[in-house]
Amino acid sequence: MRLPLLQFRRAFSAKKLVYSQYGDPAKVIKLEEFEETKPGNNEVAVRWLAAPVNPADINQIQGVYPLKPPMPAVGGNEGCGVVTALGSGVNNMEVGLLVIPSHAGIGTWRTCGVHAATDVDAVDKDLPLDFAATLQVNPSTAYRMLKDFVDLKPGDVIIQNGANSAVGRYVIQLCRMWKIKTINVVRARPNLTLLETDLKSLGADYVVTEEQLLKEFRGKFKNIKLALNCVGGRSGLLLSSLLAAKGCIVTYGAMSKQPLQLPAGPLIFKDIRAVGFWMSPWYLVPENTPKRKEMHQELSEMYKRGELKCPLFAKNSIENYESALNTAQTEFHAKQMFLF
Amino acid sequence: MRLPLLQFRRAFSAKKLVYSQYGDPAKVIKLEEFEETKPGNNEVAVRWLAAPVNPADINQIQGVYPLKPPMPAVGGNEGCGVVTALGSGVNNMEVGLLVIPSHAGIGTWRTCGVHAATDVDAVDKDLPLDFAATLQVNPSTAYRMLKDFVDLKPGDVIIQNGANSAVGRYVIQLCRMWKIKTINVVRARPNLTLLETDLKSLGADYVVTEEQLLKEFRGKFKNIKLALNCVGGRSGLLLSSLLAAKGCIVTYGAMSKQPLQLPAGPLIFKDIRAVGFWMSPWYLVPENTPKRKEMHQELSEMYKRGELKCPLFAKNSIENYESALNTAQTEFHAKQMFLF
Repeated sequence: MRLPLLQFRRAFSAKKLVYSQYGDPAKVIKLEEFEETKPGNNEVAVRWLAAPVNPADINQIQGVYPLKPPMPAVGGNEGCGVVTALGSGVNNMEVGLLVIPSHAGIGTWRTCGVHAATDVDAVDKDLPLDFAATLQVNPSTAYRMLKDFVDLKPGDVIIQNGANSAVGRYVIQLCRMWKIKTINVVRARPNLTLLETDLKSLGADYVVTEEQLLKEFRGKFKNIKLALNCVGGRSGLLLSSLLAAKGCIVTYGAMSKQPLQLPAGPLIFKDIRAVGFWMSPWYLVPENTPKRKEMHQELSEMYKRGELKCPLFAKNSIENYESALNTAQTEFHAKQMFLF
Repeated sequence: MRLPLLQFRRAFSAKKLVYSQYGDPAKVIKLEEFEETKPGNNEVAVRWLAAPVNPADINQIQGVYPLKPPMPAVGGNEGCGVVTALGSGVNNMEVGLLVIPSHAGIGTWRTCGVHAATDVDAVDKDLPLDFAATLQVNPSTAYRMLKDFVDLKPGDVIIQNGANSAVGRYVIQLCRMWKIKTINVVRARPNLTLLETDLKSLGADYVVTEEQLLKEFRGKFKNIKLALNCVGGRSGLLLSSLLAAKGCIVTYGAMSKQPLQLPAGPLIFKDIRAVGFWMSPWYLVPENTPKRKEMHQELSEMYKRGELKCPLFAKNSIENYESALNTAQTEFHAKQMFLF
C-alpha cells in the first residue's frame, strides 16, 4: 500500500525551472521534478524560499547576456533559502541559516538544491523574504556604485538618470542616509508630479526631466562628483557634462539602447572619466568577500530600521512560471518573484 | 653721437608677441618691443631661439581654450632657448644651458624673457631646435598616453585614430621601439597608399580606414588594451568596441567635434573605461617632476639615435607673425614655427 507515500512525495517533490537552449524564456524554460540528494563534502542542502525574475535572468535565457552557465541550466541568479543539511567538512554554516547566493549563476529557480558551501552566504535571518531574495543585486549595485568610484562626503551631490528604476530608488535612499544630495533625472510623463512625490518620499532632493535639467541645473551645482547612468545616449552626455573636474560617470545599464555619449572637452580638460559597473563579477573577486559581508550586513540593518524600502513583487508559484516569465518581459514595472 | 647705439639697440631689441583681448590671433596679436631686464632672485634670463605655433596656442588666443593666462599675455606655450644670465639663489642652472618651459603658459613667442628658474627645464644641449622646441607637447603626450593608463608589454596591440597627426606619428615610433603593435586608423583619401607607406616607414604595423577596420579587424586581435582617440564621435565608438576586457580609451582630441561614443555592453560587461589626457596640467603636478626629466631624457636620446623623426616646420621671423598665424589656422598640415 504505497499510495500515501507516493502522494506525499509528489506534494513535496523537488522542482526546478531548467533551460537547455536559448530562446524565449516562457518557451524554453521547462519545469522539472528531480530527486533530492544529500549534500556531499563541502556542500550544503538549501530549501529555496523565494527568487525574483530579474531582467538579467531573462536576457541570460535569451542568450544575450554575457553570463552563460553550462546547459542544462537552472534559471535565476538571486534568491534566498534555508540551509536544511550540511555535508562533511562544512564548518561555517548551520542548519536553519537564511542564505543567499554568494555570486550569480548557481540557479535559484528551484525548490531546493545541493550547493557548494561557498556558493551561498548567510544573511540576517530576520529579513523578510522579499528583501533577502533581492539583496544581492539591486541594493548592492547602488551601494557599490556610491562607494567604489569617487570619495563621497556628506553634502556632496550626485546625479542619476533612470532614477525610478529599482537601483535608482536604492541610490536615493542610501544617499538620504549618507547625507548626499541627489539630482534624479526621469522621463517626462503625464503623472510626473506623482512620481516626483514618490521619489521625494524616499529622500530625493531634486526630481527633474532632461528638459528641466538643461534649463535649470547647468552651473547650479559646482561639485557633482558622480553620475550614475542606466540610460546611455544623449542622457549620458547631459549627465557627464554636469560633472565637476575629476568626476566620474558610472554606466550600469543602457535602457535607450544607444551608445553612451561623452563630451570631449570635460574628458580632456576636466579629467572626467567613464567606467562601467556590473555586480556579478564583483562577487567573484576573493578580496571582495569581507566587503560583501559588510555591505550585506549594513543594508540589512538599514532595512530592519525601516530606512530602506524594497520594491513590491507579484508572487508566483513555480508551476505558474510561463505567466511569470511573460509578465516580466511585457510589463516592465510588474516585478515578478517565485515563492517556492 | 648716439646713433650707432640706437641702431644697435634696435637691431637686437627685445620683442614679444602679445595679446590683450581674445579674438582672431592674426588681429589681436601685437608685436611689441620691450626693455630687457636682469633676472632677480630665483630667476633666469632666457634668449628664446624657437617656438612652434600649436593649435592650442591659437585656441588660447581665441579664448576657447581652458588655459587663460592673465592679460596682457605673451603667446606661445612651448619653445626652446638658452640661459643667458642667472639671478641670485639659482643653483641648479648655468649660463648656456638649453631650456624648454617646464609647463604651459609662460609665453614663448618672444626673443628673450626673464622667468622663474622653476619655469624652465634644462634639456640635452645637442638637440636640434625643431625637436627641442617641440619636445614638451607632442612626443611627451604620446609617451605618457602609452605609459600611464595600461601596462603595455612587448607584443601587445594598441589602436589609434588620427594616426597621421603629430602625436599619432610619435605614438607609432614609440611603439615600434617598445615592440608594441599599432593599428592606425586614418580617413579614406585619394592618396591612401602614399600615407600608408609613410606611416609604415615610421613603424606602423597596420594602416586602415574605418571601413577596412569594420570589415577586417573585428575579432582579429584579442588583446587590444589601449585605444588613443583624437577624433571622437563614431570613430571612438569603433575603437572602443575593439578593446579587450579592462581596456582603456584615452581621448586627447576631438577633431570630429562630436561627443565620444562608447558602447554600453563593453563598458558594463568588459569593464572598459574612458579617460582623457591633457599634457599641460600633468607638468604642474609636483610628483611628476622626476618622471618629466626621465621622459624628456629618454625621448632626447631616442631622437639623437635617429629613432624618432620630428615633423617639418615652416620657419617664420617674429615680424612675420600675421602670416604665420594665418597659415597655422588655414593650412592644418603646414606646421609653423618662429625662429627668433
